[in-house]
Amino acid sequence: MDVSDNESKRPTLGVGMVGYAFMGAVHSQAWRTVAHVYDLPLSPVMSAVCGRDADAVRAAADRLGWAAAETDWRELIARDDVQLVDVCTPGNSHAEIAIAALEAGKHVLCEKPLANSVAEAEAMADAARAARRRGQLAVVGFNYRRLPALALARRMVETGRIGELRHVRVTYLQDWLTDPQAPLTWRLRREQAGSGALGDIGSHAIDIAQYLAGEPLTGVSALTETFVRERPLPEGPVTGLSGTGGDRRGEVTVDDAALITGRLASGALASFEATRFATGRKNALRVELNGERGSLVFDLERLNELYLYDGTEPASTAGFRRILATEPDHPYLEGWWPPGHGLGYEHSFVHQARDLLCAVAAGEQPEPSFDDGLRVQRVLAAVEESAANNSAYTPVPPVTPAAPVPA
Amino acid sequence: MDVSDNESKRPTLGVGMVGYAFMGAVHSQAWRTVAHVYDLPLSPVMSAVCGRDADAVRAAADRLGWAAAETDWRELIARDDVQLVDVCTPGNSHAEIAIAALEAGKHVLCEKPLANSVAEAEAMADAARAARRRGQLAVVGFNYRRLPALALARRMVETGRIGELRHVRVTYLQDWLTDPQAPLTWRLRREQAGSGALGDIGSHAIDIAQYLAGEPLTGVSALTETFVRERPLPEGPVTGLSGTGGDRRGEVTVDDAALITGRLASGALASFEATRFATGRKNALRVELNGERGSLVFDLERLNELYLYDGTEPASTAGFRRILATEPDHPYLEGWWPPGHGLGYEHSFVHQARDLLCAVAAGEQPEPSFDDGLRVQRVLAAVEESAANNSAYTPVPPVTPAAPVPA
Amino acid sequence: MDVSDNESKRPTLGVGMVGYAFMGAVHSQAWRTVAHVYDLPLSPVMSAVCGRDADAVRAAADRLGWAAAETDWRELIARDDVQLVDVCTPGNSHAEIAIAALEAGKHVLCEKPLANSVAEAEAMADAARAARRRGQLAVVGFNYRRLPALALARRMVETGRIGELRHVRVTYLQDWLTDPQAPLTWRLRREQAGSGALGDIGSHAIDIAQYLAGEPLTGVSALTETFVRERPLPEGPVTGLSGTGGDRRGEVTVDDAALITGRLASGALASFEATRFATGRKNALRVELNGERGSLVFDLERLNELYLYDGTEPASTAGFRRILATEPDHPYLEGWWPPGHGLGYEHSFVHQARDLLCAVAAGEQPEPSFDDGLRVQRVLAAVEESAANNSAYTPVPPVTPAAPVPA
Amino acid sequence: MDVSDNESKRPTLGVGMVGYAFMGAVHSQAWRTVAHVYDLPLSPVMSAVCGRDADAVRAAADRLGWAAAETDWRELIARDDVQLVDVCTPGNSHAEIAIAALEAGKHVLCEKPLANSVAEAEAMADAARAARRRGQLAVVGFNYRRLPALALARRMVETGRIGELRHVRVTYLQDWLTDPQAPLTWRLRREQAGSGALGDIGSHAIDIAQYLAGEPLTGVSALTETFVRERPLPEGPVTGLSGTGGDRRGEVTVDDAALITGRLASGALASFEATRFATGRKNALRVELNGERGSLVFDLERLNELYLYDGTEPASTAGFRRILATEPDHPYLEGWWPPGHGLGYEHSFVHQARDLLCAVAAGEQPEPSFDDGLRVQRVLAAVEESAANNSAYTPVPPVTPAAPVPA
Repeated sequence: MDVSDNESKRPTLGVGMVGYAFMGAVHSQAWRTVAHVYDLPLSPVMSAVCGRDADAVRAAADRLGWAAAETDWRELIARDDVQLVDVCTPGNSHAEIAIAALEAGKHVLCEKPLANSVAEAEAMADAARAARRRGQLAVVGFNYRRLPALALARRMVETGRIGELRHVRVTYLQDWLTDPQAPLTWRLRREQAGSGALGDIGSHAIDIAQYLAGEPLTGVSALTETFVRERPLPEGPVTGLSGTGGDRRGEVTVDDAALITGRLASGALASFEATRFATGRKNALRVELNGERGSLVFDLERLNELYLYDGTEPASTAGFRRILATEPDHPYLEGWWPPGHGLGYEHSFVHQARDLLCAVAAGEQPEPSFDDGLRVQRVLAAVEESAANNSAYTPVPPVTPAAPVPA
Repeated sequence: MDVSDNESKRPTLGVGMVGYAFMGAVHSQAWRTVAHVYDLPLSPVMSAVCGRDADAVRAAADRLGWAAAETDWRELIARDDVQLVDVCTPGNSHAEIAIAALEAGKHVLCEKPLANSVAEAEAMADAARAARRRGQLAVVGFNYRRLPALALARRMVETGRIGELRHVRVTYLQDWLTDPQAPLTWRLRREQAGSGALGDIGSHAIDIAQYLAGEPLTGVSALTETFVRERPLPEGPVTGLSGTGGDRRGEVTVDDAALITGRLASGALASFEATRFATGRKNALRVELNGERGSLVFDLERLNELYLYDGTEPASTAGFRRILATEPDHPYLEGWWPPGHGLGYEHSFVHQARDLLCAVAAGEQPEPSFDDGLRVQRVLAAVEESAANNSAYTPVPPVTPAAPVPA
Repeated sequence: MDVSDNESKRPTLGVGMVGYAFMGAVHSQAWRTVAHVYDLPLSPVMSAVCGRDADAVRAAADRLGWAAAETDWRELIARDDVQLVDVCTPGNSHAEIAIAALEAGKHVLCEKPLANSVAEAEAMADAARAARRRGQLAVVGFNYRRLPALALARRMVETGRIGELRHVRVTYLQDWLTDPQAPLTWRLRREQAGSGALGDIGSHAIDIAQYLAGEPLTGVSALTETFVRERPLPEGPVTGLSGTGGDRRGEVTVDDAALITGRLASGALASFEATRFATGRKNALRVELNGERGSLVFDLERLNELYLYDGTEPASTAGFRRILATEPDHPYLEGWWPPGHGLGYEHSFVHQARDLLCAVAAGEQPEPSFDDGLRVQRVLAAVEESAANNSAYTPVPPVTPAAPVPA
Repeated sequence: MDVSDNESKRPTLGVGMVGYAFMGAVHSQAWRTVAHVYDLPLSPVMSAVCGRDADAVRAAADRLGWAAAETDWRELIARDDVQLVDVCTPGNSHAEIAIAALEAGKHVLCEKPLANSVAEAEAMADAARAARRRGQLAVVGFNYRRLPALALARRMVETGRIGELRHVRVTYLQDWLTDPQAPLTWRLRREQAGSGALGDIGSHAIDIAQYLAGEPLTGVSALTETFVRERPLPEGPVTGLSGTGGDRRGEVTVDDAALITGRLASGALASFEATRFATGRKNALRVELNGERGSLVFDLERLNELYLYDGTEPASTAGFRRILATEPDHPYLEGWWPPGHGLGYEHSFVHQARDLLCAVAAGEQPEPSFDDGLRVQRVLAAVEESAANNSAYTPVPPVTPAAPVPA
């Protein structure tokens, strides 16, 4: 009894992905999985993946489940079977690819940070607004918003569970550069990576703070530091975060760590830290929000848990409670397993794919938009400006909301 | 540039699955995913899924990614495009289906517990031994062995890191029956489920203890209890663990909870608890091993973590350390993400699929075999015997190892 | 301006203590402190301490703050300035001293376990009942009842916060005997210690379970084990838990570990473990109670914390909450510091002293009485009987409540 | 057998205490306890306590165990039976009392922060240096240095266990001002308290950072905030942190929260937060140090625990380990209980008393000296300067070490 008839009845959305390293692998897992977990209005079709090396991209297509491989992203964009372009390249090519894709009438999902500069990000946001008027969507890949625990936290803030915000405290700690012999990969070069810990993980910290608070940062003061200023140049293949250094050495041109303080629009205080030198911290995105009536705490190393302190309880029985974000009515959980059966890192990308497919079907722009990406980019720029200016408090210009789309 | 040529070069293994509820959904996710994450000698092909209701199984096939649907498991087994039968039905049909599949020359993956009685489990183990001589494999689905943290724990025990074992302590706590109005589903009926918390989750507890210790239980003493002896009969559809009760009531014929003490072959003490009445515990499989030189601790609600106490450290700096089981050289991690990017519950099934595909390609029987399943079944039977006999200490008969397969 | 006049106005209670090792030191700290922390109806006066070695007891009196030293406990009891006898000796002398003190008209505080046998404990309970009719009080030193977190837990159970009990789970894990070369001190000799881990720490586990549940155990099944059956005899001084072994060896005549399952009067299930072989666990008295409407969790290694799961919360925001038991309206906290300023182990003894002084002033028998001590002793005896009888389920005879004291 | 002879043989040190509120109560507990726990070269005698209200101070003397009461601190200083003056008053009187006591030839223990201004702190440090030449000691009461876990952390940093420092991260979070109706006590008035969260708890955070790192902060950038700028004036008695507000309102003239970033002399980055608006955080002084070879973590709400990550372990078995700081060879533990029997907040004051008595006997100046207090004061001043100057990075002037004392 063949069931292929069933499948063909659902409308589809052709996806083309540029880049197939770490991010490309995670996105592929999401595109392969999403339609089997959720009941979707639109099924993704993994039409083609693109990379510069023909053999490598062909192998990647095979391994990751893409029907075809391309070596020129312009050709990928031009394909008839591609309606959505998924940009998983380093930051210095985001603007060019994403804008071209939007201009070609495609929806775009672009990895974070949106760009390597405010100018690029503004051009992208402009392109997205123009495309929006043509019915296209553009989304930036701040995937942590789609972790059930953090989406639940947002829901609680939004419904007033913790009251007026006083403090937002986000640290994103990693440790993969503590060894001074770790090689000088592209992530340590300003021209490719834009910045160091700041853009790579600090951007996540800032986005999640603005998302959870529901309001933007209005100003920041910052210190940045490069602890190891010279490293061995890499020899041989560099994959993911690893690789081997040779005898020659080069200059590290990005930050190793950034400390940021600031204010949100409501007057709440915010503090951030992003570092790759926190020995023992593997992926510690930690978030705490203190409101007048409660607090919320999250740690990415325990991503299925959200801690809530309900300040309206009598003091004698109040306490931080561990909510396992695996209940049926928690965000995104309807497609997964019974309570207590935890999800992983990659599930946030499945959820991102789900929201995007639903949004395309509904014709509604989801968050985080390119404007949200620009909002983060402006904070990153203000951070670097403050750090270069003796930590002086530096305003973050607001992002003017896009004009509403006429019905 | 089409890459389908590549894909066709790899040898394949056709899989047919019986049952498509919770376990069927998780197994499907594993079969869909495994070849995209690991470099395998054999690619699975999701040939067909089987269920009694034609419309429902067709919808399931579509949703879960199976090429065809069958309504008679005998026909599924008979299919030429099925070389491995994956049994995801309730325990009372395991023996019949698995034995038929083995006799038909198919490899078998059978969900746990292996069967509803020792007699059935023995027949299955016999069939598996006979099939082994014909080159077939039979595996029981104790998936938690494939969680990286627990596989790492096993590695540590095996290499002597914690020394001679003194204590094994395993509790598996859930809470989905605390409400006395929860309906009387098949899981609360002896004729279908075999037993209650004991077989459903206690079997996991016992298997993981024997696996980690590397030795069997030799005797047990037990108490079991049914706290709520009558429940409303379900009305309308019952899905997963939920459903609604009506006005009529029926008798609960299985245990709600089981407490077990026992001894391992080495003389170490073991204690177990399985319950569905531990309010607030959603899926708390907790394991602690104390050895002469160290201890290990695990909690399924934080499945990416393994705690190690190294007793050979000076007392002043010794302590339980939290190992994030996400390092590249941890078991199963080579296919996944960088350190600190946690996995979820379902990954254990992907790992199970990987090990099974590698084993088929190599022609080697992997653990847990049907003998391992029988080993657990004998413990479950001894538990029930002890509980019925005033908690008297009851020996667990050993499982005679299968005769070695001639080369 | 001298203030000694003030002090003399308060009535006093003369205390005489027998034994000055670990327990004696903690009790002394409590007697020295209690009147400075709480506003008491009665001030303790540390009249005299008693020990067999004249020089040693004199030094102890000086160090611990006792006004006088005695070498014969009968003389201590006879002193006019002693109204309360505090028994801090090993278990084999409890009965003789406590009964003599009661017969001499003194109040008695006796360390746990009450005695080394049921017969002794019964004699003590009888003596206490007789003394009660004369207005005297007798208390057994289950000090953990006086930890704020556990007293708070009791309050919650009593007021129905967690509903009808289903499970009580208590483990008391230590590791000071894992080294097989640890010497054969008196604690490993049945004639002095009565039993091993069972009486020493298992008695705490059983008392706290009965206290928190508010009901007795009605039956038990048990396994006990002595992992290391021969140890070096101690050479030189043995202090506290430490010491050095010589060349000669002797037999260990007590248990190293005990596993216990049982039932409470209400039908709730109970499980216990007491061991000195849990490598890495220093003083891990862990308690979990699961009720129909909630759960409570405690760990002595984090004694200022109580975890509550409120099962009446909506599932989506329910979770185990950490209550810091340092709020002003928590038990015993009115004398101490502001919220968040944690207490230590010894504070439970200060609270014990407070409750005892208040009870003497009020003429009311506080818990835990010698009947409560007898209740524990009967469980210990049933455990040993079950362990010797193939783990057969063994009833625990009830303790007939003392006849009410006529007004 | 009276033992008072023994006691009289030890030399004594007469102590006079000024102030008897929260700090006075804790100090009293320390002075009462220290000689009974440690074998000391010098026994403290609690000669007299001083306060302005005669009845109240007399009651306090009685309750807290002081032999006499004074109403004028100058008379207390002048007493022959006072060799050490313990200053437990609010910050605005520290300088006057401490300097007078030093000039009168007394040793001084002064509560933190040392003073309300740098000028006062400098005068005090000058007085202490002069007194040092006469053989007197002056210590500032940063008691957290004496928690075993933090003293152990210092030992590990000092011996290179975590290598070159990269990050120091300290937050001190409390929540007792979240209610906007909490009354305007003296702690919210600049003229008495000097500053708000900054001086009260931020001073602890800064001292502990400089202590653990073993090096001073060289510059800071800061944001401060007063969330609730007007509060009801208190009516009736205000005790500790509580009290009731009336109808009239007044202006809050201190900070509610302070965010600080900075650099240590070695180039390590530091971040601090002090707030009274972190709902649910009762006394959360949290410390994390990341070094090139390891990390350390501490939380005052679990004060018996120190977490160590040893970065020299293989990655596959490395993890943050929980060291229970209750081992016999941990700092200060020789006087207390067996492993796993936790200490409380107040024990740090007993340890402070011990170190001070030993130092007086040895004639050696212990840390933290008034210079250390001044070091903190200069950071506090730089913080306020930066906050007032648009968060501009502001250098912290070094404290010139005192000239060595001639032998």
